[in-house]
Amino acid sequence: MVEVEAALARALAACRLIPPDAAAAVVAACDVGRLDLVALAERAATSATPVIPLVKALTSGADPAAAAWLHHGATSQDVVDTATVLQLRDAMDLLDTRIAAAAAACATLAERHRDVVMAGRTLGQQAVPVTFGLKAARWLGALDRRREQLDWLRPRLLLVQLGGSAGTAAVYGDDADAVASALADDLGLGVADLPWHAERDRLAELAGALDAIAGVAASIATDLVLLAQSEVAEVAEAVGDAPASSAMPHKRNPVDAVAARAAARLARGECHVLLAAAADHELERAAGAWQAEWVALPSALVRTAGAVGRLGRALAGLEVDTERMRANLEREGGLTASEALAAALTPAVGRPTAQSVAGEIAARAAASGTSLREAAASDERVTGVLDADALAAALDPSAVVPRASRLVARALATHDRLRDELPSR
Amino acid sequence: MVEVEAALARALAACRLIPPDAAAAVVAACDVGRLDLVALAERAATSATPVIPLVKALTSGADPAAAAWLHHGATSQDVVDTATVLQLRDAMDLLDTRIAAAAAACATLAERHRDVVMAGRTLGQQAVPVTFGLKAARWLGALDRRREQLDWLRPRLLLVQLGGSAGTAAVYGDDADAVASALADDLGLGVADLPWHAERDRLAELAGALDAIAGVAASIATDLVLLAQSEVAEVAEAVGDAPASSAMPHKRNPVDAVAARAAARLARGECHVLLAAAADHELERAAGAWQAEWVALPSALVRTAGAVGRLGRALAGLEVDTERMRANLEREGGLTASEALAAALTPAVGRPTAQSVAGEIAARAAASGTSLREAAASDERVTGVLDADALAAALDPSAVVPRASRLVARALATHDRLRDELPSR
Amino acid sequence: MVEVEAALARALAACRLIPPDAAAAVVAACDVGRLDLVALAERAATSATPVIPLVKALTSGADPAAAAWLHHGATSQDVVDTATVLQLRDAMDLLDTRIAAAAAACATLAERHRDVVMAGRTLGQQAVPVTFGLKAARWLGALDRRREQLDWLRPRLLLVQLGGSAGTAAVYGDDADAVASALADDLGLGVADLPWHAERDRLAELAGALDAIAGVAASIATDLVLLAQSEVAEVAEAVGDAPASSAMPHKRNPVDAVAARAAARLARGECHVLLAAAADHELERAAGAWQAEWVALPSALVRTAGAVGRLGRALAGLEVDTERMRANLEREGGLTASEALAAALTPAVGRPTAQSVAGEIAARAAASGTSLREAAASDERVTGVLDADALAAALDPSAVVPRASRLVARALATHDRLRDELPSR
Amino acid sequence: MVEVEAALARALAACRLIPPDAAAAVVAACDVGRLDLVALAERAATSATPVIPLVKALTSGADPAAAAWLHHGATSQDVVDTATVLQLRDAMDLLDTRIAAAAAACATLAERHRDVVMAGRTLGQQAVPVTFGLKAARWLGALDRRREQLDWLRPRLLLVQLGGSAGTAAVYGDDADAVASALADDLGLGVADLPWHAERDRLAELAGALDAIAGVAASIATDLVLLAQSEVAEVAEAVGDAPASSAMPHKRNPVDAVAARAAARLARGECHVLLAAAADHELERAAGAWQAEWVALPSALVRTAGAVGRLGRALAGLEVDTERMRANLEREGGLTASEALAAALTPAVGRPTAQSVAGEIAARAAASGTSLREAAASDERVTGVLDADALAAALDPSAVVPRASRLVARALATHDRLRDELPSR
Repeated sequence: MVEVEAALARALAACRLIPPDAAAAVVAACDVGRLDLVALAERAATSATPVIPLVKALTSGADPAAAAWLHHGATSQDVVDTATVLQLRDAMDLLDTRIAAAAAACATLAERHRDVVMAGRTLGQQAVPVTFGLKAARWLGALDRRREQLDWLRPRLLLVQLGGSAGTAAVYGDDADAVASALADDLGLGVADLPWHAERDRLAELAGALDAIAGVAASIATDLVLLAQSEVAEVAEAVGDAPASSAMPHKRNPVDAVAARAAARLARGECHVLLAAAADHELERAAGAWQAEWVALPSALVRTAGAVGRLGRALAGLEVDTERMRANLEREGGLTASEALAAALTPAVGRPTAQSVAGEIAARAAASGTSLREAAASDERVTGVLDADALAAALDPSAVVPRASRLVARALATHDRLRDELPSR
Repeated sequence: MVEVEAALARALAACRLIPPDAAAAVVAACDVGRLDLVALAERAATSATPVIPLVKALTSGADPAAAAWLHHGATSQDVVDTATVLQLRDAMDLLDTRIAAAAAACATLAERHRDVVMAGRTLGQQAVPVTFGLKAARWLGALDRRREQLDWLRPRLLLVQLGGSAGTAAVYGDDADAVASALADDLGLGVADLPWHAERDRLAELAGALDAIAGVAASIATDLVLLAQSEVAEVAEAVGDAPASSAMPHKRNPVDAVAARAAARLARGECHVLLAAAADHELERAAGAWQAEWVALPSALVRTAGAVGRLGRALAGLEVDTERMRANLEREGGLTASEALAAALTPAVGRPTAQSVAGEIAARAAASGTSLREAAASDERVTGVLDADALAAALDPSAVVPRASRLVARALATHDRLRDELPSR
Repeated sequence: MVEVEAALARALAACRLIPPDAAAAVVAACDVGRLDLVALAERAATSATPVIPLVKALTSGADPAAAAWLHHGATSQDVVDTATVLQLRDAMDLLDTRIAAAAAACATLAERHRDVVMAGRTLGQQAVPVTFGLKAARWLGALDRRREQLDWLRPRLLLVQLGGSAGTAAVYGDDADAVASALADDLGLGVADLPWHAERDRLAELAGALDAIAGVAASIATDLVLLAQSEVAEVAEAVGDAPASSAMPHKRNPVDAVAARAAARLARGECHVLLAAAADHELERAAGAWQAEWVALPSALVRTAGAVGRLGRALAGLEVDTERMRANLEREGGLTASEALAAALTPAVGRPTAQSVAGEIAARAAASGTSLREAAASDERVTGVLDADALAAALDPSAVVPRASRLVARALATHDRLRDELPSR
Repeated sequence: MVEVEAALARALAACRLIPPDAAAAVVAACDVGRLDLVALAERAATSATPVIPLVKALTSGADPAAAAWLHHGATSQDVVDTATVLQLRDAMDLLDTRIAAAAAACATLAERHRDVVMAGRTLGQQAVPVTFGLKAARWLGALDRRREQLDWLRPRLLLVQLGGSAGTAAVYGDDADAVASALADDLGLGVADLPWHAERDRLAELAGALDAIAGVAASIATDLVLLAQSEVAEVAEAVGDAPASSAMPHKRNPVDAVAARAAARLARGECHVLLAAAADHELERAAGAWQAEWVALPSALVRTAGAVGRLGRALAGLEVDTERMRANLEREGGLTASEALAAALTPAVGRPTAQSVAGEIAARAAASGTSLREAAASDERVTGVLDADALAAALDPSAVVPRASRLVARALATHDRLRDELPSR
């Protein structure tokens, strides 16, 4: 806020609305070091906004010219909102950097484990083979899409607010546009068509974006937690210097993924506050919905950035047990090939018969503890239409690799393109 | 879903994966009229998805070729998700049409009442004069921005899903990309880089957009409710054939605005379900988060479209009492000019003195029941620096008109541009 | 609503405010069969409430005495709110019945598997042994507590609304209390101290309760989904006649648990609408917050009851694989006994040394693939303080049974008490 | 947490599980002053819980006996959860005190202005007369009900957690119950039937209660904001030393009510996090849902207490302009008596005719700018059935007073009863 008051004075001087000396005096007065922050916070609690006591504190003991012109023509909301946008710019940079880092870690995982076969799981059940490369590529795609959304939002959000008491910037008269432009230039921000004191739809869009980002972080972190379960054990977080459990020294907790999930939940709470607040701004300034943003917006940014940061750490150090992936696939007797078996039979017998034959064989294999392969190889409905080689080919989980690999290549190509197109922050 | 199954058969035939006759048989079987919807719903409740009983019902009694090839290579989620996207396309069209209609009504209001002076109100208190044109222009801007967001989202959302059981479309082998493209062409949709069975960040972005749209509708509707209050009475909804209150025949309830606010609240609930669900999709298919979308997504669209539709009706017929606007401004003794008074005094005495003088005069006027104008004209601290003409000019609420009018012009220019750029749906 | 109008007429007659014949005429007119519900819905959409067209429809073509007295002295909100309470009563009964059924299933599981040892899992990692009986008992406790909450809420919620236009029931004059009592008696409801047209804190409390109930259902259902994972496979839902996956015939999907989780998510959305609405009721009747309740409240009840119903079905037919539970515990080499090992060493060497020795042994066992038991038996720091029997006792997972069994007994005792205290609905 | 570790040592000594000297050493080590809180926070960020580094820090440099026995048999969650309950107890006391203070202010307002007639407003429109006493009594009722809910919750929430790693308190063997009881006694808390590491339904119930409390605060604060609007001006907050608006010296902002509304919105966000988290706790300890509680629960308490505190301040100093209340009622030409007019005509002509006559007269009065009284007095359909005195009595807004006054008395009687029954905290 102090930075905004100083920039406003410079802008007013640039537009010749206040003398250059006055601007210099204001800028000199705008020194955070002069403030007693605790006293200021206390006074803010009894005012409608923190700006009133801030202006008082900055002008108190300052050069009379500063006292005369500091905050000239502005309303509290101009200062609070523009200051918020300055914070938002930094936060969006941090967020973008962290998403990019997590995406880079996914790209590395996708390349390194492109052809590693593992179980795909639907509703918690092993379903059909996939590759770990494809899984990492899907994570990558979601992260990259969120960077695109942030990039789309940036110019729509990073705007000065300068409308005076009710959006008309009446005090500046015909110079209102010039002052807003000068202020925006000074701060490196844009200018909106219209004042946005009570139109907070842009912040609603931001809240939706943050919620989506936190959601991507949570969703990937959930995959990590599930894959790290004792009975699955396909991935583990790097041990680093993280202490073990206080009571269970053997545990290998997915600490960063857990923290990412917790932070994402917390972020959603604040995003929800912002979305509801945006709907409730009324007339020329809201009586409650605006004030809630003061807390919820920075908190939403911190929590979202926390979720992405912890996820990035989990991904960057992720240990992948590719042997266990293959073993888990086999341990269920190769039942995940039942879809492939049905597909291989379909040309000869039609889909319904193929499905029912494959289903029966799978059930028999599961009940008897033999593998699907053996059960299929001893079933005449299968051997009547598929020879041994064809059957082996159909049941080989590696059959998924070529297609999955092409999908990975696509995600990596998109990632490379975005890395070039979206500037790193 | 029936449409998707038919399109899939055509796509498979186009890729020569099934015979043309089989495709024709599938298409013939895909007739909604053949379904017992109640029985289907009951069976769906005991299955993991509605697709299993649907496929059974469509193939039952159908040509054997249809039974053999219907649903070939697809998983339930392919059908449900693609069908959802088809609904979404229609819903987004409807939503865009309704937002455009509400925006057009705002543009008309902004033009017609461009220079009508009224009280700007902050925290419920009359603050400084604004124009009704500016208010309508601000509503317009928010609505137009939401159309831009929908336009940005459209190609990111309107995508087929065709990944088979775990996203690899394994059954189609090397033809997987070709089948997906053919299906997309058939349905007029796009193709995603990657399967999105468990990456629902796009739906989170949609939920954020719907919440923002509903929020804009609610925020404008709230303005209407507040301006229609008995004691304010600056706007009223068209009476039409809406019956009066059951017990209070004199009331003029803002029925459409109230309905818009209620629908927007309801929409937010479903958007929140979607945002939370997107964060909780796991592995290759979610065990609960996906299924919740089946209800929440269509409901969110209906509720959001309802909110915008009711708002549009309220705006289209809005009665604006411009005399009452002026009278309300005067009734408070012209106190809303106190900021302007302070601004007029500032060049001569500096901002702090000017503010305190204006404040004292305003307080004296309020306490004595005289107008600010009279109180200022009899105060030497004012008359010493402002002559009668200058004082009158400073206190004239119409002084806001030129600046406000330029802002209105900007919003209308943006609106015109978007009307050309964004195709009407 | 029709039922409420009829009851009101009887109450007015009982208080001698309308003639008995008029009451009889009103009751005769209050016949749902006389209504064209589609036309009524359309008219309701353009009115502030559905009651205005309803009263018109009921009086149209009715006995003139009915037309003269139907809805006498009531406001729309009286009818809508009281009708809502009637629905709520039925819904609370259904909900209580379903929670009780799910609790009974848990009690059976807890008794039957009281002493079955299995892995306790924290953060997804096997931690220490627990019993399945204890797990079921914890589920039971949560369900029983929710019944207690419903029981506490019942008399606080099941209240008539009869305040007329603004809560004063002015039309009835001195008879207002008598009419309210008579109406309440007629409908079997209570009477509140005060009108509650705009004080919706009771509904907020209900929404909190529904959210808590849905949360319990979701939390238990999540346990079922996790325990049913292919790699864990300790429980499975009864197969019944649920069809298998469309593409993966071998899968054993936890269909009911998944549906319970989905329904609980959906319930939360509506509860959130209700909680937000309760905060936004203003003055004597809300302009939007009240109307949102019309949709959100019944929907919240349906969704919550759906979640509990599906959970109950999952629990009632649950297949428990106690051998697999034991095998999973062993498969990790008995590492879950590391806490017990540390505890056994503590008296001799102090907690820090005990923890670090146990940790080292666990790490060595995990790295070498031997069991914790073997690794401990060959470590002098252990054998120096524990003889073979003491070591075996310390590492026996069954050591948890006595304490867990006492906890189960407590939960069952509480359950039995509540079954007696809380009437079945 | 430090307090819990100390109490645990005392409890263990009381149960003779550790020597008295060891307990004394632990208690001595449990000195917050010995902690480097910043370093602790940093280490906590890389651990699964803050307890691991806390135990390390407390034992570092402590008496060896302390190091040997501090945290004996407990898991991190035991310490975090029990410490949370200690905070919760203080917070619930604070909250109850603040609700009671706000309720007391309402009781004073209800008594003082029991018979002050004002406009009741539905959907923002003047509807029928009410009294300000009744309005304050309705606020009072909602606040008192929330105290009752807190009282119901208190014994259900204020419970120790002591289950060890997975709820079985295995390390304590047969002494587990005794240790839990001793710990509970030491801390003045209760003991639950069962461990509640993953059953968070009690916290969901708390979150619902906090949301309901915040909602009551918001709803009353909204009434204050609406009644304080410039055009209504029936109430105003005490000016105190709150500075005026920065740019608009004449404004009388409802600062405390606005802050209460903002805080209540923020509280709802955290309550929603807690409700969602409760639904997602899994198995023996949640991987994310639990950790989110660490932030959301204290924040929810702070925000809710903030909302109630600011509301209490607004109510305690509320200035009530009873003349303006009467004037606002008159200013609309007495149209709020139209319901009463219809009621007075009903016995003679039946409800439909009475309503339509009253409606026509009200419309004529509104259109011509005369009062309802005059319009009615000159209408033969009225004068034919009501003489001048009867008409005057019917249209007198004071007719509402007796009934409203009885309602106020009821609310005050309940309030007095609760003041006696619920101990002040």
